[in-house]
Amino acid sequence: MIEKASYVVEPWTLRESGLDVDDLGRSESLFALSNGHIGLRGNLDEGDPHGLPGSYLNSVHELRPLPYAEAGYGYPESGQTVINVTNGKLIRLLVDDEPFDVRYGELRSHQRRIDFREGVLHREVEWVSPAGQAVRVRSGRLVSFSQRSIAAFYYEVEAIGDAARVVVQSELVANEQLPVFKGDPRAAAALESPLVSELHHAGATKVETLHITRNSEIRVAAAMDHHFEGPDSIGVYTESEPDAGRVTATVVLQPGQKLRMVKWLAYGWSEQRSLPALRDQASAALIAARQTGWSGLVQEQKEYLDAFWARADVEVDGDPEVQQAVRFALFHVLQAGARAERRAIPAKGLTGPGYDGHAFWDSESYVLPVLTYTAPDAARDALRWRHTTLPLARERAELFNLAGAVFPWRTIHGEECSGYWPAGTAAFHVNADIADAVARYVNVTEDTRFERDEGLELLVETARLWRSLGHHDLDGRFRIDGVTGPDEYSAIADNNVYTNLMAKRNLLAAAAAARRHPGRAAELGVNAEVAASWRDAAEDMYIPYDANLGVHPQSEGFTEHEAWDFENTKAEQYPLLLHFPYFDLYRRQVVKQADLVLAMQRCGDAFTHDEKIRNFAYYEALTVRDSSLSACCQAVLAAECGHLSLAHDYLREAALMDLRDIEHNTRDGLHIASLAGSWIALVEGFGGLRDSGEVIAFAPRLPEGLTRLRFGLGVRGRLLRVEVTAAEATYTVSSGPAMTLLHHGRTVRVQPGEPESLEIPPVPLLERPKQPAGREPLSYLRPPGSGAQSTSSTPASRPGGDVNG
Amino acid sequence: MIEKASYVVEPWTLRESGLDVDDLGRSESLFALSNGHIGLRGNLDEGDPHGLPGSYLNSVHELRPLPYAEAGYGYPESGQTVINVTNGKLIRLLVDDEPFDVRYGELRSHQRRIDFREGVLHREVEWVSPAGQAVRVRSGRLVSFSQRSIAAFYYEVEAIGDAARVVVQSELVANEQLPVFKGDPRAAAALESPLVSELHHAGATKVETLHITRNSEIRVAAAMDHHFEGPDSIGVYTESEPDAGRVTATVVLQPGQKLRMVKWLAYGWSEQRSLPALRDQASAALIAARQTGWSGLVQEQKEYLDAFWARADVEVDGDPEVQQAVRFALFHVLQAGARAERRAIPAKGLTGPGYDGHAFWDSESYVLPVLTYTAPDAARDALRWRHTTLPLARERAELFNLAGAVFPWRTIHGEECSGYWPAGTAAFHVNADIADAVARYVNVTEDTRFERDEGLELLVETARLWRSLGHHDLDGRFRIDGVTGPDEYSAIADNNVYTNLMAKRNLLAAAAAARRHPGRAAELGVNAEVAASWRDAAEDMYIPYDANLGVHPQSEGFTEHEAWDFENTKAEQYPLLLHFPYFDLYRRQVVKQADLVLAMQRCGDAFTHDEKIRNFAYYEALTVRDSSLSACCQAVLAAECGHLSLAHDYLREAALMDLRDIEHNTRDGLHIASLAGSWIALVEGFGGLRDSGEVIAFAPRLPEGLTRLRFGLGVRGRLLRVEVTAAEATYTVSSGPAMTLLHHGRTVRVQPGEPESLEIPPVPLLERPKQPAGREPLSYLRPPGSGAQSTSSTPASRPGGDVNG
Repeated sequence: MIEKASYVVEPWTLRESGLDVDDLGRSESLFALSNGHIGLRGNLDEGDPHGLPGSYLNSVHELRPLPYAEAGYGYPESGQTVINVTNGKLIRLLVDDEPFDVRYGELRSHQRRIDFREGVLHREVEWVSPAGQAVRVRSGRLVSFSQRSIAAFYYEVEAIGDAARVVVQSELVANEQLPVFKGDPRAAAALESPLVSELHHAGATKVETLHITRNSEIRVAAAMDHHFEGPDSIGVYTESEPDAGRVTATVVLQPGQKLRMVKWLAYGWSEQRSLPALRDQASAALIAARQTGWSGLVQEQKEYLDAFWARADVEVDGDPEVQQAVRFALFHVLQAGARAERRAIPAKGLTGPGYDGHAFWDSESYVLPVLTYTAPDAARDALRWRHTTLPLARERAELFNLAGAVFPWRTIHGEECSGYWPAGTAAFHVNADIADAVARYVNVTEDTRFERDEGLELLVETARLWRSLGHHDLDGRFRIDGVTGPDEYSAIADNNVYTNLMAKRNLLAAAAAARRHPGRAAELGVNAEVAASWRDAAEDMYIPYDANLGVHPQSEGFTEHEAWDFENTKAEQYPLLLHFPYFDLYRRQVVKQADLVLAMQRCGDAFTHDEKIRNFAYYEALTVRDSSLSACCQAVLAAECGHLSLAHDYLREAALMDLRDIEHNTRDGLHIASLAGSWIALVEGFGGLRDSGEVIAFAPRLPEGLTRLRFGLGVRGRLLRVEVTAAEATYTVSSGPAMTLLHHGRTVRVQPGEPESLEIPPVPLLERPKQPAGREPLSYLRPPGSGAQSTSSTPASRPGGDVNG
Repeated sequence: MIEKASYVVEPWTLRESGLDVDDLGRSESLFALSNGHIGLRGNLDEGDPHGLPGSYLNSVHELRPLPYAEAGYGYPESGQTVINVTNGKLIRLLVDDEPFDVRYGELRSHQRRIDFREGVLHREVEWVSPAGQAVRVRSGRLVSFSQRSIAAFYYEVEAIGDAARVVVQSELVANEQLPVFKGDPRAAAALESPLVSELHHAGATKVETLHITRNSEIRVAAAMDHHFEGPDSIGVYTESEPDAGRVTATVVLQPGQKLRMVKWLAYGWSEQRSLPALRDQASAALIAARQTGWSGLVQEQKEYLDAFWARADVEVDGDPEVQQAVRFALFHVLQAGARAERRAIPAKGLTGPGYDGHAFWDSESYVLPVLTYTAPDAARDALRWRHTTLPLARERAELFNLAGAVFPWRTIHGEECSGYWPAGTAAFHVNADIADAVARYVNVTEDTRFERDEGLELLVETARLWRSLGHHDLDGRFRIDGVTGPDEYSAIADNNVYTNLMAKRNLLAAAAAARRHPGRAAELGVNAEVAASWRDAAEDMYIPYDANLGVHPQSEGFTEHEAWDFENTKAEQYPLLLHFPYFDLYRRQVVKQADLVLAMQRCGDAFTHDEKIRNFAYYEALTVRDSSLSACCQAVLAAECGHLSLAHDYLREAALMDLRDIEHNTRDGLHIASLAGSWIALVEGFGGLRDSGEVIAFAPRLPEGLTRLRFGLGVRGRLLRVEVTAAEATYTVSSGPAMTLLHHGRTVRVQPGEPESLEIPPVPLLERPKQPAGREPLSYLRPPGSGAQSTSSTPASRPGGDVNG
């Protein structure tokens, strides 16, 4: 029998003991390795059993038709879906002719672990074959941060007790058979065998395969090479065929003897480059990696991560689970973006095929805020990717008779792939989210070259969009009608507060950037009149307010809608979108995810503190968190309002989303935005970071359960460290010149090497806001002994997952 | 060469001389014959050439999957599509071995005509074969009003000049090859060969075929029998195969000799009845028809139509085209509904496959108002059809967590077939339209038995829907949020005035009917409290008003939206929905079809006369009439406001929709609602009929071009005739007791046989409202010498057609 998997809470490591054969999909996502360029799910080396095999190359996708029962103008006809490319992870083992498969024989022990400082997935197995031969297998796997086209594997098998004939097969397999999804049969059909073989070659210990995707015509080269160590008698055989390559080593091991293999795996892919060029590219990467060697790659990996953690590490005392979770989160956010390099950062990173591998607004709104302070080059490259898609976004704007650019709601390659426009095209806020990420990146890094070369154009084209999408009404208010805000349980509404405030910021940011780069602005057709019309529209931006209730309606008229009947909604009817029609969700007051609350987080200046407290309480009672994008935002506003224990609860929900598989869909890939959200909840929530003005501001304050919080930020040429305890916050400029910041509204000047410690003002006493019945932050997630009042102790009851983000 | 077709303007006849081989689809629709049970397109007897072959049986449909790029809760998964059933119209002719085909040889003359008093389609052709043999063919065709399962054909061929060997083949053909549609290839695939043969039999001059539809499993029996007359030497051969049957007669005709054939065609179909039962049913009908004979069927047809016209005829002096058109319209409206008998009245009747053969709100809102006064049994049966679908409508309400019934936006069989919910499910007004048709029918006919047995339940279930769909807000207003009104260029809006007013009427009508039938109401669970809550909701119904502009917004907030940029919209960009995305249409002030204007027509009491004038002018400037449902409503309100020449223009547009093929899609079937609209424009427009209160009201007033209007109404046991001239209106009770009516607001008592003539008050002088640039009522339609100012004289520029209704 196989011991059930358990995960140990350790500060720097994710360690699994035992194995859940029935829940492998989850661990495959948790142990996925990626550098943003290549992604390998944490499948077992030997391939079987699996939850879902997965090897992904950023941007490699296949096309599939998007069907409509009733067609409409501007509906995208073709969708893009991430594909499982040539699998180079496979290392099969035969022991005296019996395949090593954990489901047969006896699994004496099974352990996997990854240290976030090391970036290598380790595995140790002791297994007895059905015939009684014991072996020990140790393996290691990495996807290189330093050599972006490279993954490498270490594999060691040792005979125990008796001599054993072992055979190790290292493979490349294209068009792997995948488990059938329950969903749309058309999608599955289109993606069966997406790779068409163009070339295969085997020689010595090396195999190469080249394929091209059937419809999207992306050429993919995969190549592997090997080094073996062990008894002298090792025989090695190499072969290839169109969809497979195999290097086989065989030897008889005496007890205690080991066969060791190092495998290097290189990928290359392109929409344009020729077959010989790509073949050479993969080969070159492979030779360089072989030259570096396994230990050299491990060393480079560590150096890369050391540099990252030196800047980015977050320390949390008092909640060991959150400590582990936030490092797990930062590791995976880094993995998603590190070497994406002008390709998208998908909602699942490269950890699984969820959402078809699409990137949404999550990237700019949740992932980039983290990367901007911790790995700014990755943030810049993600925005450069958006910039490369500007021609497509301009085309879409033209199709819609709008000015500027209309970025897609969901895409891999830049084309709109959303098949439901009320929650796709109509969610125009994605354009302001991109602009906001540009402005944030430039503000934090002072990268004026990026601003001039790419940022300005993104700001200008999105500003143009807003100016043409909105209009002045007879009262002189600038209105943006008929759009969908972040909350996907409302759609096609007028004057969504989040959208209008973000559009306003976009218009002002574009005008300001044009002023800083007048020459480039002129080239882009922006003169003083254009900029003035943006500022005017921003100035006149209409922000509806319900004076009777003293709260902001999420969109105009929202607070007059009927409230959702939460009392008569059963636990199993969540997420609501799987059990109620859109029209019913749209016409009522029920909120899937932070919308007005996100507006208060991003554009806090537009609200008084009292408004924030009233608004937050009002929307808490309506928000069901059917989206994983919500909890972290609620954490930030809860903390700002002074609901610290509630903020802690939301932090835990965001941070443990995947480690606890709260939405039961971690198997499809990690919720990268929610992982990023754990950093946001800590740094923007308990750290109180706000940084859209001229001076970076903090308002730190810890909940009862946390005794210390420490985080670092790279900001305007400094490395700033913030350490927070219950009583005080200490600001240290670790590198770079002195800087000015705000601490709870007070201006402070911090000199390099001279930490400033400041008192934290007492927290005002407020009643904890109520959530809809049954939708309180999950109480079982709460750490023992936390001061918060307890709710029911039922386990997670949130099946399914959110649909768009 | 074939002479181009021309249509003569005659008061009682549609007559075509010549033939447009390239535009046959249009004439096939214009000459379609139907009794509401069976429909035969006006295809040429010999089948080829054709625009679109079509034989339809009411409710016989096939299922096809409705695909979605992104699925959603409550989306219908299966659609229904009308199918072309076994074709029994085919009569092929061979002359000395050469097939009679108008495209070859010489067509000396070709004439078709139908007299609306006779209901028989006549054809006369003189043709010379390529080999030089001349023949004259005379044929007649009818679909019997008196024997609903029967169509009959008369066919006569005469040799001219030389003796000729003629062969006449009378056929039954199932699964005819149809022209490929440009649209969705999936739809076409699903409907290829929808009929599966179950039995075929040939004997003497009779052939029977039985088929069952592949997925919907509807069994269809077709049977034909024949009688031949001519020279003694006629040889007759009969044969059948699974998808075809053929009776062939051959003879040598001396010059002047004729071969005459009468063909009887019977259909039977059922979802439930067995094969032998259906076979017997068709045979029985066939024998009865044969017994009646061709001339007997022609006689019955005339008697049926005489009775109809005696009540329903509308006389129009001064505009011969409108005179012809309104009779053409009434004839086709009758054809659509006469013998539908608890089956739907589709938007195209049984004249073509447009809109998949679906019935929409058109039926209750446009067709039934006409039938209620002119053929009340047909109106009753149409409502009975809705009643039979109540179980499905209740299921759908339950699926949506609503009370009562939710009727489908589009359907054949009762299930929702709309694949785009913002213009389908969200268009809840269809439920109030059904209730309104019930109340109107009961009010006009005083059919209390129908009210008790079927009407009440329809009223009650729709009232329950509204009570659960709306809610009281904090100010005590009853709101209906997030629905779509008649105008399909807006969607998912709050408090649509039309919807709210009609829902109010629905609630009140249900409460009043429950009071009249307390026993039945109690059985339906309606007690005094329930009825009171309906009256309360009705009383509190919120009707938004824009006090600044002094007009009613179509829906809340509508008047604050940006106006459509009509100046920069090109003529070829209409209909807008084919050239602009929904999101853009929805967020702007642009109106596809009468919405607020329809509210003023149906619920005139809710508006002052000044409001009507202001509202009408406001919406005229925004309404593009991309729907054929609009012009007649605009005609009615234009007349009421005093814009008589404009009303005349709109009347002509509604009346000539198909005769002039204004939307270039008459080939897909006639616009039955627009045809009904020509009656509405005359009777509710220039007659000023309003009949939702206790007393029937008229406010007649003629435009300059019309010198006399006369129409009859069956109302509350009377036959009332109204004759209008410029100066006065004369009311005559032709049968039944005395009645009270309103003439321009003045109460008048009319005694039987004592016509009352009353003066018509002068028309107030008003500026003609402006339409969007290029969307004025089509000037080329205006009769010569009409007093209206002329607009541009460009020909029709409205390609395509409306999508839903």
